[in-house]
Order: sequence, then structure tokens, then C-alpha cells
Amino acid sequence: MAEQKKMVEAITPMEEDFAQWYTDIVKKAELMDYSSVRGCMVIEPYGFALWENIQHFLDTRFKELGHENVAMPLFIPESLLQREKDHVEGFAPEVAWVTMGGSEQLEERLCVRPTSETLFCDHYAKVIHSWRDLPKLYNQWCSVVRWEKTTRPFLRSVEFYWQEGHTMHETAEEAKAETERMLNVYAGFCEQQLAIPVIKGRKTDKEKFAGAEATYTIEAMMHDGKALQSGTSHYFGDGFARAFNVTFQGRDNSINYPHQTSWGMSTRIIGGIIMTHGDNNGLVLPPAVAPVQVVVLPVAQHKPGVLDKAYELRDRLKGSFRVKVDDGEQSPGWKFAQYEMKGVPLRLEIGPKDMEKGQCVLVRRTDREKIFVPLDQLEARIAEQLDIVRQQMYDRALERRESMTYAAGTLEEMKRTADEKPGFIKAMWCGELACEEKLKEVAGVSSRCIPFEQEKVGDVCVCCGRPAKSMVYWGKAY
Amino acid sequence: MAEQKKMVEAITPMEEDFAQWYTDIVKKAELMDYSSVRGCMVIEPYGFALWENIQHFLDTRFKELGHENVAMPLFIPESLLQREKDHVEGFAPEVAWVTMGGSEQLEERLCVRPTSETLFCDHYAKVIHSWRDLPKLYNQWCSVVRWEKTTRPFLRSVEFYWQEGHTMHETAEEAKAETERMLNVYAGFCEQQLAIPVIKGRKTDKEKFAGAEATYTIEAMMHDGKALQSGTSHYFGDGFARAFNVTFQGRDNSINYPHQTSWGMSTRIIGGIIMTHGDNNGLVLPPAVAPVQVVVLPVAQHKPGVLDKAYELRDRLKGSFRVKVDDGEQSPGWKFAQYEMKGVPLRLEIGPKDMEKGQCVLVRRTDREKIFVPLDQLEARIAEQLDIVRQQMYDRALERRESMTYAAGTLEEMKRTADEKPGFIKAMWCGELACEEKLKEVAGVSSRCIPFEQEKVGDVCVCCGRPAKSMVYWGKAY
Repeated sequence: MAEQKKMVEAITPMEEDFAQWYTDIVKKAELMDYSSVRGCMVIEPYGFALWENIQHFLDTRFKELGHENVAMPLFIPESLLQREKDHVEGFAPEVAWVTMGGSEQLEERLCVRPTSETLFCDHYAKVIHSWRDLPKLYNQWCSVVRWEKTTRPFLRSVEFYWQEGHTMHETAEEAKAETERMLNVYAGFCEQQLAIPVIKGRKTDKEKFAGAEATYTIEAMMHDGKALQSGTSHYFGDGFARAFNVTFQGRDNSINYPHQTSWGMSTRIIGGIIMTHGDNNGLVLPPAVAPVQVVVLPVAQHKPGVLDKAYELRDRLKGSFRVKVDDGEQSPGWKFAQYEMKGVPLRLEIGPKDMEKGQCVLVRRTDREKIFVPLDQLEARIAEQLDIVRQQMYDRALERRESMTYAAGTLEEMKRTADEKPGFIKAMWCGELACEEKLKEVAGVSSRCIPFEQEKVGDVCVCCGRPAKSMVYWGKAY
Repeated sequence: MAEQKKMVEAITPMEEDFAQWYTDIVKKAELMDYSSVRGCMVIEPYGFALWENIQHFLDTRFKELGHENVAMPLFIPESLLQREKDHVEGFAPEVAWVTMGGSEQLEERLCVRPTSETLFCDHYAKVIHSWRDLPKLYNQWCSVVRWEKTTRPFLRSVEFYWQEGHTMHETAEEAKAETERMLNVYAGFCEQQLAIPVIKGRKTDKEKFAGAEATYTIEAMMHDGKALQSGTSHYFGDGFARAFNVTFQGRDNSINYPHQTSWGMSTRIIGGIIMTHGDNNGLVLPPAVAPVQVVVLPVAQHKPGVLDKAYELRDRLKGSFRVKVDDGEQSPGWKFAQYEMKGVPLRLEIGPKDMEKGQCVLVRRTDREKIFVPLDQLEARIAEQLDIVRQQMYDRALERRESMTYAAGTLEEMKRTADEKPGFIKAMWCGELACEEKLKEVAGVSSRCIPFEQEKVGDVCVCCGRPAKSMVYWGKAY
């Protein structure tokens, strides 16, 4: 009991210090460890198993949609990075440079890829010749490096893991459809699998990806009201194709530039899972990606038959669920706290009395509700309870987002809301960069997105009072 | 037909120029492309699908044996690399150095990991405290960088892909058992799944991994008689643990250093598959890892019902096999050549006459044998034919290795054999480095391994004539 108390007390409550609460969880749930390399993480087995489940779902979905995995080099020669002007301006200040190989100075510096548009274009220029070669639908899973000054586990790190899809199409329409399709894949994954409600929309020019014509995003709200950009999909037009001289012979024999997209989701989403669902007892994991969906805890495990029963249940369930038994010597209380910390969606308790009655107890991570389940209905009831857990998680997150979303009609109202109420602010915007910059300066908020689902919360720009073009979500962001 | 001929003629026969034959295959089978980054590959979809199948098999096996995946940083600070003396001496001359982040000079250089023992030890020092924390059985899938001067696709490249397992154990015995277990996983995978016969053995001190107490290897013979080291497993004792101050409290409360292993298999094995099984028509892929196991080619596909039948067969088979239909406009001859080039194990031909008879034709990549198969027996017959293909591949490779393995009793005999006959040479060795170096100098061969299956081919060292300690396989190697 002492051990359990100690462990539970060791988490800083989120109301007291949200940043510390976050750091406590990533460490105590054993998701990651700091390394000796500034800003680079060690992703520990539990965190990596979570990432593998995320990867598996997305990878399967990408392949169903016709995408193929490839591997591009880790390095980008400086001259290649410089080929597209906006792109190099956006990324050059934050890359790591390799200048020596063995003991020799390199003739040309190589940067460690911060993203791979340039490498994909360089390759596409060699393999795309005819409209018959299109579309090219490539993806890669890798890590990328951005030389960030201030880092936080999963949210902002020098090295992070992601997938980057890069596609080339015959027409602008096809490329735009791909951009939208992949944004929808991300949104569906967040909402269905991760139980994270997201707002889909377009980034303003100020916030878009360096070199893109348009960037689309899904934005999620964290416990503290801040936004997390959770996945992005970019439409490039033929800008990179022109810069890299990627051409194809069209159906009418004319020479054309193909139209391009890229899209990515990263280990950042793990930060999003923590900050959307976690509580003061630790992590709460969405069943679809939880490394352990059901932990079997034998009660009074020294009593005859209890452990055997626990193993029997595990063996019976393991074809259908990710399940483990904890037969360790620690007290039940310690174990309860431990698996709450790790966010396991369901705890299954089985003891001598349950065995007599041919039942077990399921306890939901989300609300600690105990459900007595006859053993002969176990599979169906676990599936049902996992669905309930997911639904509870989603509903809570959506309710929170709705209760923490405000509207503002004037700059002053915007500033007051931003100062006093954490959350999103809906406000009309004229479309001018100057107003966007002023809102940042005065109210400390950035534009999160111009949502696809527009809503008229006024007629004029919240900042300048001129006629508004669109409604924008504003907020503080990770 | 012109197109087919052109394609077939475009491969240089291996008898004419083996290196060119190899390069032709990697390019024409679309496994990889050269990049703008010296020594770094673009692995194309077909090559990457092959690697994913290799990964899937090994990863499943590792997990069955209790290993967990993690992710370590891409970079190693110079001071960390230097912690273990032999290790830094072995690797420092061939690493890429990051010296700048953005526009700032780094205070300490970071190397791009050439291998990750130092990073794992640095982490293990933080998470291992008690014997209860052992064993730690970690693995990671990643790319590593070694600044090689001369590179060849898959065989030797600046960046390559691999997995590296790193484990820590309570006792030397346990660590040694792990080293052996993982070597056996690699050997089993090569022989069973890849149809590549291998020789298991220990590396001499000269050839072992920098910092290891012992390195175990599996060695395969390529078409040209050269050896390919195809997987290695290292036993470190507690050398790294001492250098990194990794300690644990033992069962008797004493403070101890854990015993360590590491083991790896890389994209090099793709080179091994090509050079073991390929022929002058292209790649020949082992069914277990082939991205496409059966290609369905409709014959006279303009005739009514043929294409529909082809799709129907694909849909019927896709739950059991990796299958695709080629319904393209190219001639059958072009398609035959194309899928031979890509090494697809079985071709399934279906045309109007077959449909009338309720049959189809299976053609094996290995010997072009045609098998007429009633459609109602299709699944069983495909499984049977894939087994036959695997067995043919293995038998041929083993027969070749046996016919190209010689014994030598004297230095002169060794030199003559090495000069005249490509292949392996079995010869006795006294165990002295001087003799090993002299054999390299005089006969141009290196020790491949001291095989576990010893055979007495003489009493005295082939070089110095003193009493021999063991029989060694010698040869030229990739």
C-alpha cells in the first residue's frame, strides 16, 4: 500500500502544473526516457509498442489506398535543399549539418533530412516520364531532425518519428483530391481509433508549410485548452516539380509538370493522446492502439487454482485482444495504480470467489466502473466494454472542447477571452496577414485553421473591422 | 516481342561480368535507384516490399522470443562514442560528423550512429538497477551510417537499414545462450525462408566486431564463389557495462556488471538473395519473402470472360498468397520476361482454352516447368509449387556451395586454389594472427569463420606448419 501511495502521489496534478503533469506521465508510464543527446528521445518499449500500433493502422490504410513504402536517404546535399526557394528559407535555419566524413571535410555539406520533399522530387525526376507513370503514391516511415532550441518529449524534439507521404499526379484536381483524402484518413484515425475529436481546415498562408500552395490540418484541443496540430496534408501545385524539373509526357504528347502532395503524422500524436485523455492517475489509452488492452490481475493469487485460471483466461483471450497477466508479487493496490498509470483500458480481476461463481470483474480505466461478467460471455463483454471506453473518451474530449470554445467579435473581446479562458476562439477574419500578426501580438493567439465547416459568428474582421472573408479558429498551440 | 528481347538482352550475363550483372538486376528489377547523396540508396517500392517481408518475419520471431522494440537517438555525442576504447577505434574512422545545428557550431560533435551499443549502454545504465530488471531484450529497426569510400547497392553503402538487438543479462551463461539463440534465428531464417544455406561459426579475433569478446556469423556463398557475411551475433562479456557503469544488485545483494550481446541483420541480405538465387533472366525470389508470390497473366485477354476470370482467381487467392494480376497492354512475351526479371516465384496463365477445361497453368520461375492445374485444386497446388520452388532454390545453392568448396594443406596449395577456383577453402589454422595476415597477403583470402561443425582436413596450420587448433573457412568476401 505504501508503494502504491508513493507512486500515485508522485504525479503532479494537472491543475497544479500541467507541464509537470505531462512530464510525469511520459516518464512514469515508461513511454520514453531522456537521452544524452540534447533534444533526442529514447522511446521505451511501452511507448514504442504504442507507436507500432499507430503505424500498423495507418500503414494498412495507406496501402489499401494504393500507396507504396520506399526509403529515401537520410541526408540532403545543401544544393538540393536550396533548389526550392521558399522551402530552403523555411527549413535551413533549423537543420543539422554533416560537414565531415571520417577525418575528411566534405566538399558539400549534407543536412540531416528535416522533411524529404527535395529527395522525393530528385527521385521522381528520374522515374516519371509519361502519364502512364502517374500517379506515384509513395510513403516512408522514418525519423527526421529539426534543430529546435526548446524541446519536450513527443511534442517538440530534435529527432522525431513520422511517416511522410509524397505523391505526384497528372492533374491538379487529382492532387487536390489526394490532399483531401489523406487529411480525411488522419481525421478518421484520430476520431475513430484515438477517440480525439479534431477540427479539419486549411492553414492561413502564414502558417502553411514552407513551399506549399495550401496546407490542410486537423487541430485537436488538449486538456489545458491549447491546440495540437495533429496531422497535415499539403498541396504543392507544380512548384517543386518545376524547381526539380520533374516532367511527363501527357496523353496529348505535350510535356507537363505533375502536381504534388505530401502529408504526415508523427510521434507528436502520442503527446496528443496523453494530453487529450490522461488524468491525475496517469495515462488513458484508446483501446485501438493500447499495447495492452486487458490486464488480467489474479486476486489472492496464492490460493489454489487462481494463477492457473488467470493464465487460462489470457490464453483464451490472446487471439482476440492484446492481453497480459501480471502475476508479480506486488500488492493488488500497487498493481491497480500501476496499470492505471499505464492507461490500460480494462482491468480483469479474477479471484477464488469469482471462480466459484464462474465470473470475473472488468474495471474500466475511464470511470473505474466494475462490471461482473460470466466467464462464458467474456469475449463479447470485453469487446463491448472496450467500445464503451472509447466512446466515453471521445465524448469527454468533445464535451470539453465544446465547453472551452468561445466566440469573439472585437479585438478587445478576443484579448480578454484569450487571457482569461483557455481554449479555442472562433472569430471572423479579413484574410490579411497584418491582422493575423496583430492578433498574435495583442491577444497572444495564432490562427489554428480556417475550418471546412464555416460558421458565421459576425460580419467583420475581429481585428480591423473590414468585411470578413472567413471564420477562423484561434488559440494558443503546442 | 522487340520490347521483350530488348529487355532480356539488356542484362549482362553473369559469366561475362558478375558485378555488372548484379547492378543490372538491382536496377531492372526496380529494387533501388541511386540518389544524389553519395553512397546512399533510394529503396524503391519493390525492394522495400521485399525488406518489409524480411522485417515482418524477423520481428515476429524476435517478439516470440521476448524481445521488445525501442528507438534510440540517431546521434551519438563524440564523448559517448569514445567511452569504450576498442569500439571507438573500430568505428571513428568511418562515421559522419554533425558539427553544426542551424547556423551554430556545436560545442561537441555528434556522429550519425554507425551502430548503437553506446546509446543502449547509456540508457541501460539508467534503467537497470536490480537482477529483477534483467534480462533486458531490446531491438531497434533503423538505418545506420558508415562513411565507406566504395559503395555497392545493398552490399556496402554509406547508409543502410538493419535491426540491431541489444540485450543485457544477469550471467555470462545467459548472455552466451542469447548470442547463440539469435545466430540460430538468423541461420534458420536464411535456410528456411530465404533458401540460402549458411555456415555457422565464430569469427577470428581479427575479424570480430570492435569491442566484442566473440563474434558469431553465418556465411553464405554467392554465385561467384565469394562469401557474404549474412548476419552476426556478438557476445560482449561485461566490457561495455564496465565502460558505461551499468551495474545491478544481484540476488545476494552484491553489485555486479551485466553481460551483454548484440546481433544484427541488414539490407545486405537483399544482395545475398540476388547473388545466391538470381540468374541471367533476373531475380529469383524465395517465396516466403517475395512481394508477389503468384502473378496472374491472362492469355488472350481481349477474349470474353478472360479478364474477369483472372480477377476472380486473384480475389480467390489473395487471402492465402501475395498475388497480382497484370492486365496491362503489353504482349505476353514482354510480361513473361518482366516477371522473370522481378523474380516472381510462380506465374499463373489463364486463357480461353484453360477456362473451357477448368484449369490453369502454373510456371515455376526456377525451371520454367509448366504444371496444368484443375482450378478446384488451385490453392493446394500453388502451396505445393511454392514449396518446390523453395526446395529447388535451396538445393541448387547448397550443391553449388559444395562443388565450390575445396581443402588446402599447404600455403602453396591455398594460393593456387584461391587463384584458380572461386569458392571456399577449408584449411587448418594454428590460431595466430600472423598466419591469418600472411594468408591474406599471399593468397588474398580472409578467414570467413571457424565453423561450429569442425572437420579435420589436416594436422598442421596451412601457413606455418605448427600444430593446428581448428579448421577455418577461407575465401574472398563482399
